[in-house]
Amino acid sequence: MATVEELKLRIRELENELIKCRQQRSQENPPNPGLRAKIEKMSAEVVDSNPYSRLMALKRMGIVEDYEKIRSFAVAVVGVGGVGSVTAEMLTRCGIGKLLLFDYDKVELANMNRLFFQPHQAGLSKVEAAEHTLRNINPDVVFETHNYNITTMDNFTHFMDRISNGGLREGTRVDLVLSCVDNFEARMAINTACNELGQTWMESGVSENAVSGHIQLIIPGETACFACAPPLVVAANIDEKTLKKDGVCAASLPTTMGVVAGILVQNVLKHLLRFGTVSFYLGYNAMQDFFPTMSMKANPQCDDRHCRRQQEEYIKKEAEHPKQEVVEEEEEVVHEENEWGIELLSEITVVELQEASGPKPDLPEGITLAYTIPNKDVKSGETVEETDQSLEELMAQMKKL
Amino acid sequence: MATVEELKLRIRELENELIKCRQQRSQENPPNPGLRAKIEKMSAEVVDSNPYSRLMALKRMGIVEDYEKIRSFAVAVVGVGGVGSVTAEMLTRCGIGKLLLFDYDKVELANMNRLFFQPHQAGLSKVEAAEHTLRNINPDVVFETHNYNITTMDNFTHFMDRISNGGLREGTRVDLVLSCVDNFEARMAINTACNELGQTWMESGVSENAVSGHIQLIIPGETACFACAPPLVVAANIDEKTLKKDGVCAASLPTTMGVVAGILVQNVLKHLLRFGTVSFYLGYNAMQDFFPTMSMKANPQCDDRHCRRQQEEYIKKEAEHPKQEVVEEEEEVVHEENEWGIELLSEITVVELQEASGPKPDLPEGITLAYTIPNKDVKSGETVEETDQSLEELMAQMKKL
Repeated sequence: MATVEELKLRIRELENELIKCRQQRSQENPPNPGLRAKIEKMSAEVVDSNPYSRLMALKRMGIVEDYEKIRSFAVAVVGVGGVGSVTAEMLTRCGIGKLLLFDYDKVELANMNRLFFQPHQAGLSKVEAAEHTLRNINPDVVFETHNYNITTMDNFTHFMDRISNGGLREGTRVDLVLSCVDNFEARMAINTACNELGQTWMESGVSENAVSGHIQLIIPGETACFACAPPLVVAANIDEKTLKKDGVCAASLPTTMGVVAGILVQNVLKHLLRFGTVSFYLGYNAMQDFFPTMSMKANPQCDDRHCRRQQEEYIKKEAEHPKQEVVEEEEEVVHEENEWGIELLSEITVVELQEASGPKPDLPEGITLAYTIPNKDVKSGETVEETDQSLEELMAQMKKL
Repeated sequence: MATVEELKLRIRELENELIKCRQQRSQENPPNPGLRAKIEKMSAEVVDSNPYSRLMALKRMGIVEDYEKIRSFAVAVVGVGGVGSVTAEMLTRCGIGKLLLFDYDKVELANMNRLFFQPHQAGLSKVEAAEHTLRNINPDVVFETHNYNITTMDNFTHFMDRISNGGLREGTRVDLVLSCVDNFEARMAINTACNELGQTWMESGVSENAVSGHIQLIIPGETACFACAPPLVVAANIDEKTLKKDGVCAASLPTTMGVVAGILVQNVLKHLLRFGTVSFYLGYNAMQDFFPTMSMKANPQCDDRHCRRQQEEYIKKEAEHPKQEVVEEEEEVVHEENEWGIELLSEITVVELQEASGPKPDLPEGITLAYTIPNKDVKSGETVEETDQSLEELMAQMKKL
């Protein structure tokens, strides 16, 4: 049997081991690994330690009038994949006030061909992994994450609630919703929510062959929503025979997704901070380095009754204050004049689109429909709010279009 | 005094504490934190654990004929800042064979408004910090880093040597040089080296007001080099009064830099893997979302004698094999035809450029000169190789142009 002295020796040994282990742990894991201190007020001071100096310089350069205003905005990013994660990182580095992230997917090694996520994050939920990285990059941003699929009924209700109340000050509206999702159902859910709430949003997309993409600004009542007309995409202009077959994964490139995230967040900055010309639709064809632009007015016969209601309200407001909303915004734009006389924007109405015959309607060069316009056999008016069908059933029905 | 039982209890407590501490340590620090195993051969298998499945899908989609060829290329990235770091990350995620990184700068918090670097890397050299992150992302890539300024005489000689011998197999040429630097001297040094070696390179740039940028492909002897004519930039088209004053830092945005890196690496992939149409010059005006393109032939009166020598060799080769080099490359392009009849490329000669009068020569809309063409008072032929002046003196002289 051990003597008291032996026991005491063992205690000393264990105590030393424990101290050593704890010291090693604290060395390996400093209290705030890499986390910089929060910054109370954005400064334009030109010192190496100021993470905002190059952004505040936009004021001195005459590009943005009030850069600090970026801190007052809350932006929801739906889909934190190849485009959404880079979008969230750009907004974080720009010093956005609040980011709300929605995704239900996990990080996989198969995502490593796109920017942002790293192999050690494989297995984590995308929103959790993204929040951890983004908070390290900029602790001044407020993060709110939701690890769920917005298209199921319960989650959709909660999603609507967070768009309505998840602003920088709880109980206020978010300032912008960004769709960075990869499927039609999720886009239609965002469209439905934003039409009902009159919420301005931007859509983004990348083709399954990885070599084209687009962004689109949707202002309910003013521009065509996703139910007004089939969504527009950049013409692939490649042999149809080579396109995706069932059960095969889509291709993707960090380049195309980086460009789409870049033009999306640039449009967000121009919209929120009011500089330059905000694009309604900007496409990217990577094979030919071609970037078509256009805009499309809302469809008075849209199936979504909330879209029609927003259109009526927009017409009323326009009549009451002829120089309001977007018109006012355009007037406040810093450098809008185009000295080069370039036709930057083609405008098309939904009626023109529908009257155009054949599979290739009269769209601006390089833009095409995501699918061919069908004969209307779905009864007009069958939208989420007007039937007893589940959201899923309706989405499936809409997808058939 | 403590009893034997009390001492034994204390030992059990300490043993448990130690086990807990060691478990926590091992959880916090897995043996290879985040490092995935190397992958011997790129596979197209569609499983979550395959980091190349979405890239290999480009073959099935008919975009790229032989994606695995990416592993045979070595690319040098000069300048690992806002554009260069994202460029290196995109190439790493695409599975490039080898990356050579050149930069002499340190990471600062003031860089945090651009993608890639994180606050915990502040103080590290950019090439060291970049290599660490990139190796974690993709251990299949071979990295070679040089923490020096390429414009000093000794380093310039070493830089030339690494371009000549730093290919995937030591002793072979790198396949492409990318200029992602932020100053004129470094661009001229790359230009001088590539002219002497007949090395194809791509240049990139972002304006000091952060809202425009460009990429350019330079094939010595074929297209205009940096000594052939003043470099072309995207017209800022904003009030000159608002432009940068001396001693003030340039503005930058993660969006503009992300877009420029994206179109640069897209052009690299198209050039190396032979798909789509490779752009000779692609500009990005973020204020108007306008993307001008053009190309410019080499100047037979170029001051750089190596440029003139490359031109002679190019003319000879063209005469001997009318369908060689770039022409051959264009024929192999997968989907080059432009169904939309869009004039994608304006072509201009240096003579046309010089004959154009006034400060705004007849350039494609949206493109302008980095500075006004001066009266030639520098004696023709005074290039690095033909005088006894130091590189620095010559650079200073060239900068005066």
